[in-house]
Amino acid sequence: MAHSAAITSAPSYSLTALPFTTTYSSPSGIFLAKPTWNPKMLHLRSRPPVRAAVSIEKETPEAHRPDTFLRESDDQAHSSSSSSSVRARFEKMIREAQDTVCTALEAADGGANFKEDVWSRPGGGGGISRVLQDGAVWEKAGVNVSVVYGVMPPEAYRAAKAAASPDQKPGPIPFFAAGISSVLHPKNPFAPTLHFNYRYFETEAPKDAPGAPRQWWFGGGTDLTPAYIFEEDVKHFHSTQKKACDKFNPDFYPRFKKWCDDYFYIKHRGERRGLGGIFFDDLNDYDQEMLLSFATECANSVIPAYIPIIERRKDLPFTEQQKAWQQLRRGRYVEFNLVYDRGTTFGLKTGGRIESILVSLPLTARWEYDHKPEEGSEEWKLLDACINPKEWV
Amino acid sequence: MAHSAAITSAPSYSLTALPFTTTYSSPSGIFLAKPTWNPKMLHLRSRPPVRAAVSIEKETPEAHRPDTFLRESDDQAHSSSSSSSVRARFEKMIREAQDTVCTALEAADGGANFKEDVWSRPGGGGGISRVLQDGAVWEKAGVNVSVVYGVMPPEAYRAAKAAASPDQKPGPIPFFAAGISSVLHPKNPFAPTLHFNYRYFETEAPKDAPGAPRQWWFGGGTDLTPAYIFEEDVKHFHSTQKKACDKFNPDFYPRFKKWCDDYFYIKHRGERRGLGGIFFDDLNDYDQEMLLSFATECANSVIPAYIPIIERRKDLPFTEQQKAWQQLRRGRYVEFNLVYDRGTTFGLKTGGRIESILVSLPLTARWEYDHKPEEGSEEWKLLDACINPKEWV
Repeated sequence: MAHSAAITSAPSYSLTALPFTTTYSSPSGIFLAKPTWNPKMLHLRSRPPVRAAVSIEKETPEAHRPDTFLRESDDQAHSSSSSSSVRARFEKMIREAQDTVCTALEAADGGANFKEDVWSRPGGGGGISRVLQDGAVWEKAGVNVSVVYGVMPPEAYRAAKAAASPDQKPGPIPFFAAGISSVLHPKNPFAPTLHFNYRYFETEAPKDAPGAPRQWWFGGGTDLTPAYIFEEDVKHFHSTQKKACDKFNPDFYPRFKKWCDDYFYIKHRGERRGLGGIFFDDLNDYDQEMLLSFATECANSVIPAYIPIIERRKDLPFTEQQKAWQQLRRGRYVEFNLVYDRGTTFGLKTGGRIESILVSLPLTARWEYDHKPEEGSEEWKLLDACINPKEWV
Repeated sequence: MAHSAAITSAPSYSLTALPFTTTYSSPSGIFLAKPTWNPKMLHLRSRPPVRAAVSIEKETPEAHRPDTFLRESDDQAHSSSSSSSVRARFEKMIREAQDTVCTALEAADGGANFKEDVWSRPGGGGGISRVLQDGAVWEKAGVNVSVVYGVMPPEAYRAAKAAASPDQKPGPIPFFAAGISSVLHPKNPFAPTLHFNYRYFETEAPKDAPGAPRQWWFGGGTDLTPAYIFEEDVKHFHSTQKKACDKFNPDFYPRFKKWCDDYFYIKHRGERRGLGGIFFDDLNDYDQEMLLSFATECANSVIPAYIPIIERRKDLPFTEQQKAWQQLRRGRYVEFNLVYDRGTTFGLKTGGRIESILVSLPLTARWEYDHKPEEGSEEWKLLDACINPKEWV
């Protein structure tokens, strides 16, 4: 079932929506931003908004995991794997990563199992959401993969614009996106939260602007959010990220480490949500095969980067005050995800699968008025490192 | 200390920011929206953004409450109260309402007291934030007043636009806003959360567009967010709102009741955050004195509407499951406030006093993956009433 939503959007609004459109790959799908304000409530207005239509397909639950979420036309991969498309190989990679990560998490948890939801969209694409809730180690852990076929507006697409003549209005540009996305919130306040997300994006050549090229790019990252700093944990985590990066390009780690610190910034607090890791987006100025291998290496580094830390911290004794501090930091996690995270904010506005999008939120969180950790305390040290990002390796 | 922020904004962006600008009155101040995305991350872009400068004054803590936060030029009220300005009388009203509400809440709590923070801005304006945390009855209760002097961009102001000739570029329009804003979260899951907010707004005539008129308007509302429905409570609450409305205009209650249901809508959930009340905005098509009296009547109705409900519910025994359901509904409260609430989202983007803005968030909240209450259960009935708003009186 497809529902069509008329959106109120000036061209520059689509422009601001674009970073989401180009990079978003949560299980909810990739669509145009719909403004949340109600034009009827506008008291003063400088000019009438421009209208554009966005068609959003509703997801359908599936009883079984299909071999692929690709459209048949994309799925020539099965016959000759050596020459298979990047689309097909990326989907294969993220689904294997989902299996590997979930198996390792269940083993480390020792108690709970992942619950799986499979869904598809009639026009192609779909996803697998896996959630482990109230385990022995993890309070809430979500590991999702998704494949999305969507359409972006021509004004959002520079290549189409450049190719079209002034009189010729280019049509909407179809795109493909696939990604794996995961947030893992442990119970023990000394065991850190982990987030990772790897995604691949392709546009079709716009139909009405034949000169405009196809485009592709990669995005992703892995980052750590502890409530307390154990230097050896943070160093191990960052070293693992650096090792994965260094296999491909010595510039990657310093560049993507800084990008991560910049991205996970809670602007209204002046602090990062955690201690970073790596983050990159819109990456296409390297060899495509190399970037596919790099994304694969990053996804494969998640478990070696994270599980040793969990093993060391999951059973440490803690006080009620330490739990409350973890809960305050979880509150910051909620603030970042609901206010700034592109995938989340975009997904919420476009009618994606809400439960998959919001699985990133912790089971519980806390907000105390004007809470300030005592200077020099362990809580203060964490906050300081969130305000002033450090070099860990 | 004033810090100046260069914002990246196309005219239509300012337009979308306007609903916030015109109606916002949290203690954080009233300013222009600053986009949260980083242009450097833009991979495709249709046209270069237009730049505009916004100057935001930082607040300064004050040891004592001043008699007024008005600029001296506005404060002729003190000598002749009968002829005092609406600005002065509105400030007086909200400060009296703050005192009355806080006194009544402390009495009903029987345990904790409000902690007060007073602050001012060098160019005029300021506020008083009062927070009661971890009381006997309330988990977290905030009652804030604020007075703000700010500047809005001319393209956001229709009147300025209409008056200016095509060649004449109107300058920024100074405005004044004052408001009271409060969120009260009780501990007992049978005792509902209450929110109210009343605000008054005025623009100066734009300097470079002499023909453009001064404008003023009122906004506000009071709404109830229970985790469980007690019909007598909801009826009592809505009746009290209706009684306040009916004293002024028989159209007010039905109109503002619907407006409230429309405003507190969590779009991505398809449900309201609670059971509504009244909400109005940009109200200036009635007599100004009448609307000032109406806002006063509404603010004075808060305690009679709410305290009798609290007295009935604050000591009811409850189960762990009922507490968890309250916490899930608190999660929805967080979602609404961080994603949709104009005052909150605007305040976060413009560098207001964060602790005052986010005092609306509950002390604790919860998110379970794919939680669905059993059909026919008390939890389901609440959810149903949030999805399908009812007439209570």
